[in-house]
Amino acid sequence: MNLIYTLDLIGTFVFAISGALTAASKKFDLFGAAVIAFVTAVGGGTLRDLLIGSQPVGWMQDLNYLYLIILAVPLSYVLRPYIQWLRHTMFMFDTIGIGIFTILGLQKTLSFGLEAPIAVMMGAVSAVFGGVVRDTLCNEIPLIFREEIYATACLAGGILFLLLATQIADTKLVTFITVAFIITIRVFAVRYKWRLPTGG
Amino acid sequence: MNLIYTLDLIGTFVFAISGALTAASKKFDLFGAAVIAFVTAVGGGTLRDLLIGSQPVGWMQDLNYLYLIILAVPLSYVLRPYIQWLRHTMFMFDTIGIGIFTILGLQKTLSFGLEAPIAVMMGAVSAVFGGVVRDTLCNEIPLIFREEIYATACLAGGILFLLLATQIADTKLVTFITVAFIITIRVFAVRYKWRLPTGG
Amino acid sequence: MNLIYTLDLIGTFVFAISGALTAASKKFDLFGAAVIAFVTAVGGGTLRDLLIGSQPVGWMQDLNYLYLIILAVPLSYVLRPYIQWLRHTMFMFDTIGIGIFTILGLQKTLSFGLEAPIAVMMGAVSAVFGGVVRDTLCNEIPLIFREEIYATACLAGGILFLLLATQIADTKLVTFITVAFIITIRVFAVRYKWRLPTGG
Repeated sequence: MNLIYTLDLIGTFVFAISGALTAASKKFDLFGAAVIAFVTAVGGGTLRDLLIGSQPVGWMQDLNYLYLIILAVPLSYVLRPYIQWLRHTMFMFDTIGIGIFTILGLQKTLSFGLEAPIAVMMGAVSAVFGGVVRDTLCNEIPLIFREEIYATACLAGGILFLLLATQIADTKLVTFITVAFIITIRVFAVRYKWRLPTGG
Repeated sequence: MNLIYTLDLIGTFVFAISGALTAASKKFDLFGAAVIAFVTAVGGGTLRDLLIGSQPVGWMQDLNYLYLIILAVPLSYVLRPYIQWLRHTMFMFDTIGIGIFTILGLQKTLSFGLEAPIAVMMGAVSAVFGGVVRDTLCNEIPLIFREEIYATACLAGGILFLLLATQIADTKLVTFITVAFIITIRVFAVRYKWRLPTGG
Repeated sequence: MNLIYTLDLIGTFVFAISGALTAASKKFDLFGAAVIAFVTAVGGGTLRDLLIGSQPVGWMQDLNYLYLIILAVPLSYVLRPYIQWLRHTMFMFDTIGIGIFTILGLQKTLSFGLEAPIAVMMGAVSAVFGGVVRDTLCNEIPLIFREEIYATACLAGGILFLLLATQIADTKLVTFITVAFIITIRVFAVRYKWRLPTGG
């Protein structure tokens, strides 16, 4: 099994859990939690696929995505009592998720013949849009507006990917470096509370 | 005139009325009511068409949908004084609507070569997404999150359709049975207040 | 440089400023303001392109749109202290924007072989949808629901364009007349507080 594909499935699974846990904390029923889990996991890739014209959208063409998301929902309800303990684990998985989704989204956009700045944007969109829909449906201010570095790390990682790709022929290596870069940036940003200037 | 097409037009018309009535109860002006009526009636099919890549989306290719929706708006304002009396009629039409839209959406998705579980999902999306947008724009918690059986009935009906289609060659008959099944499930669920477990 | 293209860029730029200023007034950070500016500027054209099946969507195929929007964000923060003074200027630019976007959206929809009533709708969608997303993300009631004439002027302008186009061969002239018509209608409507009937 392809490494990128495996990581993509892991990212999907973890985003689904994050969605289901958010829904459960808001007292949604199982069906509502499944909807939230689904849009969190596939929302970013779906928006990217619609904008670039890759249809049917990705998750429709491989049932493993659907099955992993369906599996994530009951699992989230079982895991809920341990969530306090799980919070750090979830944060790390979510961070790995945005790292992977950013670079995969960027690569797919480039493969459609679109220009580098558009690919960087689509990478970030792939990574963060699912969370935006999750937070909106759960009536919370989206994380990308609360945690400033969230999307910025994705954009910076995308730019780094493009720069390195001009120097290093091994795409797999560049992917690894930039995913690690995004993860590092976010972990440090959250730990040390990095902030962007506000318009006040 | 084709029976399925007729039912599709009826479903569109009734969903448009349901949207316009909701908007009128929120004191939207006529234009706002027309917007709500429109998205309620075509929202589900539009999302399905975008995801599977059927563009221009369905209602753009047959003006009868547009004309029926435009007709529904003033009619809703005329009918408003009788709405208390109409509530049961509306409930039945809405229920017929989701039954029809589920099976039509499922069949269209299959015709695009997508797999059965995806088609079941797209059937439910076709049926319920318009109502989600209506409730969101009118600042209400979407019906699919308040009335647990709403979408579940669509998913169950879709699965039944696929099961019966392997046994019965007459698609029209299978369509009838499964639409009736969805309607029956919802009517009983609402009457006897069936509930899914919550994450409390 | 083509006149229509120039006007399209101006409309994009002004809508981006309008989005960034709204975000700044809500104390969004720079990243949030950039997101709002972006969706305000390209939201309408993006929805139109998705519905008619023109993908990759328009702004992805010409980086000038992206660069103008990125430029608009810091500029908005610099301009903010003068915004009271700027309000009338902004209103005029926004009004010019919806005029242009309506006619461009209508023409693009017709070029995809869709019928006149659909083209009129897509013209209005191109003009107003970006503002709907801006207002929704900034937690305000969308302008199209507060200012009744906003979308109605776009629909009326679209109908006028189609009527004139049957009489006058010079598309550029018809475009000018109808854009001016939309601007005039909105200016008079806001000045004299024209209202549509409500469902009260």
